[in-house]
Amino acid sequence: MKTYIGIDLGGTNVRCSTVQMDGTVIETVKGPSHADEGAEAIISNIAAMIRQLKDWQNASGIGAAAPGPVARDGNGMAMCTNIPCLAKFPLRDTLQNELHLPCFLGNDADAAGLAEALVGAGKGLRTVIYITLSTGIGGAIVYNGQLLPGSHGYSMEVASMSVDGSRPKINLPANGAVEDWASGTSVTRLGREKMPDQTIAHAGQVFDLAAQGVGPAAAIVDQVTTDLAVMFGNLATTIDPDCFILGGGMMKSAGLFLPMVKEKYQARVLPALRDTAFLTASLDEPGVVGAAMLPMSNGL
Amino acid sequence: MKTYIGIDLGGTNVRCSTVQMDGTVIETVKGPSHADEGAEAIISNIAAMIRQLKDWQNASGIGAAAPGPVARDGNGMAMCTNIPCLAKFPLRDTLQNELHLPCFLGNDADAAGLAEALVGAGKGLRTVIYITLSTGIGGAIVYNGQLLPGSHGYSMEVASMSVDGSRPKINLPANGAVEDWASGTSVTRLGREKMPDQTIAHAGQVFDLAAQGVGPAAAIVDQVTTDLAVMFGNLATTIDPDCFILGGGMMKSAGLFLPMVKEKYQARVLPALRDTAFLTASLDEPGVVGAAMLPMSNGL
Repeated sequence: MKTYIGIDLGGTNVRCSTVQMDGTVIETVKGPSHADEGAEAIISNIAAMIRQLKDWQNASGIGAAAPGPVARDGNGMAMCTNIPCLAKFPLRDTLQNELHLPCFLGNDADAAGLAEALVGAGKGLRTVIYITLSTGIGGAIVYNGQLLPGSHGYSMEVASMSVDGSRPKINLPANGAVEDWASGTSVTRLGREKMPDQTIAHAGQVFDLAAQGVGPAAAIVDQVTTDLAVMFGNLATTIDPDCFILGGGMMKSAGLFLPMVKEKYQARVLPALRDTAFLTASLDEPGVVGAAMLPMSNGL
Repeated sequence: MKTYIGIDLGGTNVRCSTVQMDGTVIETVKGPSHADEGAEAIISNIAAMIRQLKDWQNASGIGAAAPGPVARDGNGMAMCTNIPCLAKFPLRDTLQNELHLPCFLGNDADAAGLAEALVGAGKGLRTVIYITLSTGIGGAIVYNGQLLPGSHGYSMEVASMSVDGSRPKINLPANGAVEDWASGTSVTRLGREKMPDQTIAHAGQVFDLAAQGVGPAAAIVDQVTTDLAVMFGNLATTIDPDCFILGGGMMKSAGLFLPMVKEKYQARVLPALRDTAFLTASLDEPGVVGAAMLPMSNGL
C-alpha cells in the first residue's frame, strides 16, 4: 500500500507521520517547531524529523498542513499569525529541494477536512463539508476527493458568513458574521455579557447553564443554535453536500446544542435538503492525516 | 473540431443545435415542445429534430437542458412544473436509446452557467459562480470545467439563502430568503406595497423610480442591493470564486443597482475577497450552448 508523509505544523509543535493511503498512521516523530528561529531553521528541523521516519524515501509524496491561508500559487502561506517568519516564505519548494519528494501545502482546516472526507466520517461520500466549531469557525469543501481551494485560498473561510444582516459588525466585516455570534469565543462573550453574576471561562459552561434551565443562558443557546442553523442552511443551498462533518472544541457540548441546530436547519431548507447528514468528526489526528492525504488528492 | 448537440427544452418550445467545442453554434432546428402529448411523443419529436441537423451522427455527444432539478441518477428530472409528464421520466436513457449517442442531462440554470464558464464571460477561469437574477434567483458553480451537482441536484438553488434572519418567511422556508426579498418578483411586490399610488408592472420600473429620486423606491433599492451584497458575500466566504457571472432579466437595470451591490459587497468581505470580479453574462443562447457542453464537461 502506498504511503505518504504528513506534516502538521503548529506555532509550538510539529508532528511528522508516515501515513498509509487508508489513513493508518505508521510512525510519528514529534518535536518543537522552533518558530522563533527563522524560516530556514524551521524547515531544516522538519526535514531532519522526516529523515528519522523509517523508509521515508519510499513515500509517494509529502503534505504539510500550515497554520494560515495558503497563497494562490500553493507555495506558501499568504499570512501566518502563529509563525510570522513563514508568511510568504516558499515553504513547499524549500521542503521539496531538501527532501526530493513531491510536496503539497494546505491550510490546517482544509487538511482536517480532507482527512475526514477521505478516511474519516465522510469516507465514500462525494461532496463533504467539514466545519470546525472552535474559538473560531472554519472549514473545508471536499468534492470527489479533492479540496476546493477557491481563487484566493479562502474557500470555506466561512467565519464571515452573515447569518443576520440586522446585527452589528464585531470583528469581521459582515453584519451578523457567524463567527462573531456563534463561535466558542462568541458564546463565552455573550455569556459574560448576559450573566455578569456568573464566572464564565468557556462556552461549555453556557451550554451547561442552559441545560440547567438558567434563563439568560437558554436564550443565548436559542440564538446561537438559530445562527448555526442559518449557516448550515446557507451552505446547503449553495453546495448541497452529502453531509456536514463537525469538529472542534465546541463539539464537546454537542449533545446540548446539535439537536436544536438540526431541527432548526430542517425547518429552514427545501424539503429535499432535510436529510443531509450531520456527522461528528471521527479521527484522532485529522491534521497530520489530512496533510498526508494532500499528495493523494493531487493524483499521487 | 469536435461537435456536440445541445437541446434546450422549455415548456413551449424546444431548440436543438449543433455546437462546436468552442461554443460556436453551427446549425439550429426549433419547434414546439408538444408538452401536452406525453413523454414519449416529446422525446420522439426531439429525436426527429436532431435527425434534421447535418452530420448529427458525428457529434461526440448530446446534452439536454431541462426545466427542473435533475434527479441524483442524472436520468431525469426530480420534478417539472412546466412539463409535468416529464417528472421522473427516464429522459436521458430514452434519448440515448433513440439516437445511439451518449446523452447527458442538466438543469437549465446549470447549463447556462456551464456555457458562460467555458465559452462565455468566465472563459479560462477555474472557479465560476453563475447567478441568474430574474423572476427568481438561481445559479450554478463550475469548477475546473465541471458543474458541481450537489448531493440532491440542488447546488446553487440559492433562492432560499437567508440574507437577514430577522425578516419573515414568505414563499421559501428560510427567514429573509434572498429570492423572497431581492428577486425581480420581490422588487415588484415591494414596489406595489410601498408605492400604492404607482402602477408597477415590473422590477425595472422600481429601479427607474429610484434613479429619479422617488423616496420609497430608493429605499427599496437600498435594501435590495444590501440583500444581494450579503448573498454575494456569503457565496464568496463559501466558494471564493474567481468571478461571479450575472444573467437574467433584472440585469437590464444593472446600471441602476449593480454598482451599489459591488460597493456593499466589498465592505462586507475580507480584504482578499474584494477583487472578485462581477461579470455580465455574454452569450445569446447560453441554454442550448451549455446543454451541448454537458458531454464535454463529462470528458467526451
